[in-house]
Amino acid sequence: MAEKKLVAEITSMSEDFTQWYTDVVLKAGLISYSNIKGCMVIKPAGYAIWELIQQHLDARFKAVGVQNCYQPMFIPESLLQKEKDHVEGFAPEVAWVTHGGLEELTERYCVRPTSETLFCDYYKGEIHSYKDLPQVLNQWCSVVRWEKETRPFLRSREFLWQEGHTAHATAEDAEARTQQMLQVYADFLAEDMAIPTIKGRKTEKEKFAGAIATYSVEALMHDGRGLQAGTSHDFGDGFAKAFGIQYAGKDNQLHYVHQTSWGVSTRMIGALIMVHGDDSGLVLPPKIAPTQVVVIPIRQNAEGVMDAATGLKEALTAARLRVSLDDSDRSPGYKFAEQEMRGFPVRIELGPKDIEAGQCVLVRRDTREKTECPISEAPAKVAAMLEQIQADMLARAQAHLDSHTFRAANKEEFEAAFAETKGFVKAMWCGDRACEEQIKEQYSVTSRNIPFEQEHLADTCVCCGKPAKHMVYWGRAY
Amino acid sequence: MAEKKLVAEITSMSEDFTQWYTDVVLKAGLISYSNIKGCMVIKPAGYAIWELIQQHLDARFKAVGVQNCYQPMFIPESLLQKEKDHVEGFAPEVAWVTHGGLEELTERYCVRPTSETLFCDYYKGEIHSYKDLPQVLNQWCSVVRWEKETRPFLRSREFLWQEGHTAHATAEDAEARTQQMLQVYADFLAEDMAIPTIKGRKTEKEKFAGAIATYSVEALMHDGRGLQAGTSHDFGDGFAKAFGIQYAGKDNQLHYVHQTSWGVSTRMIGALIMVHGDDSGLVLPPKIAPTQVVVIPIRQNAEGVMDAATGLKEALTAARLRVSLDDSDRSPGYKFAEQEMRGFPVRIELGPKDIEAGQCVLVRRDTREKTECPISEAPAKVAAMLEQIQADMLARAQAHLDSHTFRAANKEEFEAAFAETKGFVKAMWCGDRACEEQIKEQYSVTSRNIPFEQEHLADTCVCCGKPAKHMVYWGRAY
Repeated sequence: MAEKKLVAEITSMSEDFTQWYTDVVLKAGLISYSNIKGCMVIKPAGYAIWELIQQHLDARFKAVGVQNCYQPMFIPESLLQKEKDHVEGFAPEVAWVTHGGLEELTERYCVRPTSETLFCDYYKGEIHSYKDLPQVLNQWCSVVRWEKETRPFLRSREFLWQEGHTAHATAEDAEARTQQMLQVYADFLAEDMAIPTIKGRKTEKEKFAGAIATYSVEALMHDGRGLQAGTSHDFGDGFAKAFGIQYAGKDNQLHYVHQTSWGVSTRMIGALIMVHGDDSGLVLPPKIAPTQVVVIPIRQNAEGVMDAATGLKEALTAARLRVSLDDSDRSPGYKFAEQEMRGFPVRIELGPKDIEAGQCVLVRRDTREKTECPISEAPAKVAAMLEQIQADMLARAQAHLDSHTFRAANKEEFEAAFAETKGFVKAMWCGDRACEEQIKEQYSVTSRNIPFEQEHLADTCVCCGKPAKHMVYWGRAY
Repeated sequence: MAEKKLVAEITSMSEDFTQWYTDVVLKAGLISYSNIKGCMVIKPAGYAIWELIQQHLDARFKAVGVQNCYQPMFIPESLLQKEKDHVEGFAPEVAWVTHGGLEELTERYCVRPTSETLFCDYYKGEIHSYKDLPQVLNQWCSVVRWEKETRPFLRSREFLWQEGHTAHATAEDAEARTQQMLQVYADFLAEDMAIPTIKGRKTEKEKFAGAIATYSVEALMHDGRGLQAGTSHDFGDGFAKAFGIQYAGKDNQLHYVHQTSWGVSTRMIGALIMVHGDDSGLVLPPKIAPTQVVVIPIRQNAEGVMDAATGLKEALTAARLRVSLDDSDRSPGYKFAEQEMRGFPVRIELGPKDIEAGQCVLVRRDTREKTECPISEAPAKVAAMLEQIQADMLARAQAHLDSHTFRAANKEEFEAAFAETKGFVKAMWCGDRACEEQIKEQYSVTSRNIPFEQEHLADTCVCCGKPAKHMVYWGRAY
């Protein structure tokens, strides 16, 4: 279709997945590269997706007692250094502020790469008694990590995210909150983003700097690579001891608090693209689509067409749908291709003949299925269709995850599974870091997580043959 | 009231206004000082106010066609320097990043103090034809200005704000957008924040670095000082020429775009406190109050009290009000004082005798007026009361502004008016910067703005006696 070419010129996935991703990101108008190396401009079409992600996730946070706040963006070097593992993890990749105005600072500040140290410093001042617990705070902000190689949404020097930081009286409370927030992420990803994930615990090697346990939700992209979509960390009392955060218990003794942190970022937009997109562009799940339905008039200069299109737009808006009307002077074919590229879940085609018959044509983005429908019934029909699309997208993504998750009972099967990147491989592991490192070196795959849903595939580790402790998801990852 | 002391210990306004402000900010739990000099932590009670400000304002923005986006937080030094006046205005007060990870940057970056230069850089890449105009973008973010003296919300090294940046085909379009956004601010401040303002143009001396015209909305605090609550700038084509932002017109010729920017910040929370607060603490207008009504059970351990209180809370929530229930083990008196300190617009007292009579007691925060009301009617009654409070708070603030705005027809009256800080003084001005500077030096007051609503108070300038050009609002300001 020549008109389609005009709009998009998206490289096909099978030809070059990396180029396909870049094409979609740019041509759907999600970002623009900036002149600040490694940083991107999030354009209105991209930012509107982020706003919907924020809305849905923030409502889920508030439903489980999370309160929002805002901490400074700077961390003095001495503060960053208070927790040993943490500073080792982050110091090599932070941006340093050395001058304020015309003066050199007496101590340099880094721009936050994450805010554990700031929240600890804050909690030290706020928490005195068991009555001050729990503290369940979150902030929406940007963070900076001085990455060398960057890709839009997946890895950039500055990115947007939320970071939750909590403090609890007991180890049990902290662990329960850590898992609760992981579940919030998993539910949000499945129900709002239509992205199924594997929930599990990270290995010691892959856990967060300073955590006693890190949990993750891992998603599978179209190209068979994994993407860590969210993480939740249990810190035990490690940070509390480093920062001296104690409370007087009901027993009148001083106790250290137990802490957690958890976060998701604009990376999720990368996952959205790579889980749902196709060769025509973006495919947005209705709950996260800034425009859920676009009305495209056919022969819009013919009498009555624009009136009918405008009336339909108003009726759809009144039904609380997010609607746009494409009344530009482009051809209908161009507009169809643009709707597909931008991933709007439904388009409605409406021309003189349709109007005469009191009909319009609904076209689903995900399946391209066309349905005729009386104009007056369009709002109800579209609302139902959006629900169906949301459900179908999750089912398709789940089917892709299932069909691209392989089982390897031994070394040969493991090797065969990773001869090419096709997806996740479930395999038994002895629990030794040495095997994990050897697997990474030999097959260029990493442990994604140790899933909560364990299976017994064999008695022995696929790497060393010693007795197996866990079943692990392995894969190449973004 | 001893219990009140327990809760608050707020210095009275008349005794020490500055201390009163600090007491309210801290004791209402809005912020906490951080160990990062000049930066504050915005605590949940403060941040929830900011979230409501964002919600209301963002809806008003979207209604006039504004789209949100996100630009990087860093500005390379060479980019900041492209517009001469702009860099002179900001370079002395920015934070400089000189190192990324372990390496020194080849060019240092500042943390954005404002993002005109970034938007210009972006627009240069986006705008080619008249079809690409207008561009009406906004971002919600934090900015950094390395201030020496700081005060919570009013002046800090990092603060939260929104900054809108637009590009237009003509000078007229840019000027119209500048004024439109000023009106959006004025409407938001009056209708949502219950803060009346004076709309007008800044003098040449007070305008923004790089603007051809700056407009402001100026509010009056309880202590008679002014506070610039929002600004809107018309840049003409100055930035476009410095950055080379041109578009091909319908005439097939290249033209420079005309630009604007406009912003409000967390300073508005400072205004909220100083316009509405009293000696018992914060007084929040209902539209911006995170908790609009708090239910306080009396003798909460008596049979049926907590059930009734919980039922009432649910009924109020169902009526779409923002409700809390204070079931802590504090005394009712303590809870009353806390509600007053935190500024929740209405409290409902509910005890065994009330329940027996099927009644509850509503108490307005602003007037302390008490009303009895059948429990079943409480949701409707509270909703109506909140509307009344919102209207009354605006009317009171307007009355304060009117009664603290003085007219000075000549030097003697001007001098008398500023013998002590009582409010704004309207006076005629010749338009010369020399007079403006002399007035500032002599009376420690600055021109707030040249109001759109001009009056003719005299023929001559209050300073030099030469023919007057404008009536100006003068005052001391935050």
